[in-house]
Amino acid sequence: MPDTHKTLPMIAVVMAGGRGTRFWPRSRNARPKQFLAIVGTETLLHQTVRRLDGHVSPDRIFVVTTEDLAAETRRMLPELPPENVIVEPEGRNTAPCLALALVEIEKKIPNGVMAVLSADHWIGDPELFLEDLDTAVKHAAWARELVTFGIKPTYPETGYGYIESEGRGPVMRVKAFREKPPVEVAVQYLESGRHFWNAGMFVWTLADFREGLEQHAPEVLAPLDAWAKAGSDPAALAAAYRQLPKVAIDVALMEKAKTVAVVPTRFRWSDVGSWPAAIEFQETDSDGNVSQGETLLMDTRNCAFFGGKRLIAASGLDNLIVVDSDDALLICHRDRAQSVKQIVERLKAEGREDLL
Amino acid sequence: MPDTHKTLPMIAVVMAGGRGTRFWPRSRNARPKQFLAIVGTETLLHQTVRRLDGHVSPDRIFVVTTEDLAAETRRMLPELPPENVIVEPEGRNTAPCLALALVEIEKKIPNGVMAVLSADHWIGDPELFLEDLDTAVKHAAWARELVTFGIKPTYPETGYGYIESEGRGPVMRVKAFREKPPVEVAVQYLESGRHFWNAGMFVWTLADFREGLEQHAPEVLAPLDAWAKAGSDPAALAAAYRQLPKVAIDVALMEKAKTVAVVPTRFRWSDVGSWPAAIEFQETDSDGNVSQGETLLMDTRNCAFFGGKRLIAASGLDNLIVVDSDDALLICHRDRAQSVKQIVERLKAEGREDLL
Repeated sequence: MPDTHKTLPMIAVVMAGGRGTRFWPRSRNARPKQFLAIVGTETLLHQTVRRLDGHVSPDRIFVVTTEDLAAETRRMLPELPPENVIVEPEGRNTAPCLALALVEIEKKIPNGVMAVLSADHWIGDPELFLEDLDTAVKHAAWARELVTFGIKPTYPETGYGYIESEGRGPVMRVKAFREKPPVEVAVQYLESGRHFWNAGMFVWTLADFREGLEQHAPEVLAPLDAWAKAGSDPAALAAAYRQLPKVAIDVALMEKAKTVAVVPTRFRWSDVGSWPAAIEFQETDSDGNVSQGETLLMDTRNCAFFGGKRLIAASGLDNLIVVDSDDALLICHRDRAQSVKQIVERLKAEGREDLL
Repeated sequence: MPDTHKTLPMIAVVMAGGRGTRFWPRSRNARPKQFLAIVGTETLLHQTVRRLDGHVSPDRIFVVTTEDLAAETRRMLPELPPENVIVEPEGRNTAPCLALALVEIEKKIPNGVMAVLSADHWIGDPELFLEDLDTAVKHAAWARELVTFGIKPTYPETGYGYIESEGRGPVMRVKAFREKPPVEVAVQYLESGRHFWNAGMFVWTLADFREGLEQHAPEVLAPLDAWAKAGSDPAALAAAYRQLPKVAIDVALMEKAKTVAVVPTRFRWSDVGSWPAAIEFQETDSDGNVSQGETLLMDTRNCAFFGGKRLIAASGLDNLIVVDSDDALLICHRDRAQSVKQIVERLKAEGREDLL
């Protein structure tokens, strides 16, 4: 008797081990992007979990993060059982992360449909997201396929992988996963109508995910299975983990699996990769300015102010990003947002651990 | 037997009652320009008093300020006898201020040469200043004339009064005081070589100053003399003060006096009227940036950072002024520095007394 959607509980796995120096001075080693309220009034982690309200029971929401962020993650999500915050000994890309989640979840839940989400993405239309998620969940449960989401590209981004689809309708077939393309190819992808951004969100049953890993990525799953079989000693996990290849789930599993489905999404999405991305989807005043915190603006256009505790008064500014934090202030031209990374590197080189 | 420079003690009167909303957010009602270290590492008040070190004994340095600033002024200048901080009941322009100083000083010092200085001006070459001051003091003591200083104009400023001189040498004759000119006239003044900026600094003997006021401005001096004669009751000063006309010493005395001398100055001078003026005489890095406090600058030119407690990181900026304070942050294009006044007015209109 096959499992059906009705009988399979819904599980969410939120990957929350990311760093993100690009949001300095707000982001720090101990305060990565998912802990920040850079888009909206809640942190991205909170938004990710709240979005599932009423759809996934809190005891079936799991968050995977690293040791140093685990306590804060648990503190931020008191509605989750503490053991649902799964701790990776170290970050080794998404295949080990999700395999560990599988092994841990199986101890609690024999089978279910597992949605893989990111803690640090922004989603603009929560209702559409839940509808698209439901489409994927049903397909994963009934057709027993691995399902991914495809984001409709809005510009020829060269920093993302693409999904080439075939067919029509709310669930399409994946013809191929495509690597980050050069810009000419990205332009073709944009025009084709058949290519989607791979946002790294997936839906599958626990059983199918296990089967997929066993078949295509035993080197990722076997050491964890052995560790679990030996009693899941927390102290022994680091040693098991060190054996795992650092590999993305896309490469370890998705590209190798025979039949993968893709749900083209209707919700707005951003991986919020930089300050300008954090601005893009926010409400602006009539002069194109975004303000978090109190501002007093004169003759100022297309600027973004991430303030908070202090008034920011501005006059005669254009296209600047201002980020105020307790111990550092960033003022940066909008076209120079990538230099935030260099600023962080310079601080590192200067031994300014207090600011990292 | 005439007084001579040798026998007359040197007295300094520092006018320190100024406000100055133009340096918001550093300047506040209770923290006017003279209390700020906006140029150099010391406050302008400290710089003004220190500049006299070894030339005027601290017990002959007097500072005139208003009630609300008196305690802080005394705290900042512990080397002065507390009574040398003379308190005006209210600001009524420079003639009442200096007449009150005269009446108060006469109680302590029968005669002397009094130099009138401003607490909130910047002087770039203290040695040249002392030499020029000495020239003025000698002339005031020996020739028994009222002496003023003339700053060589460097551009056609329309916001200052001018002094038209005649003659040559280190002490010249004042032909006329000229009102703030329209720009065409200011250009002529600049080209003439005979016109100087009136910086509001004067030197005269106490006796000559008294004689000048008695002759030309009895309405300013008489009520204060009456108050002093009646016992200098501090409580009665406000009533006496309210009778005095609000008038500048230039108008009340200098323009009316028959013979006034002018010492053309050799030191660099600024009345530091705005943030750009505060930048003008400061050392810049090779990209034209001025930094107070810790900064990390990338691709940033002709900017000024008045920081302090926090690192300021900047990237891709041009011609900005950034002023960081505990409760407010100002970011302003260099050409829009005058809008600081409007910002303060808006805060006032919004009842933000906490920021004023």
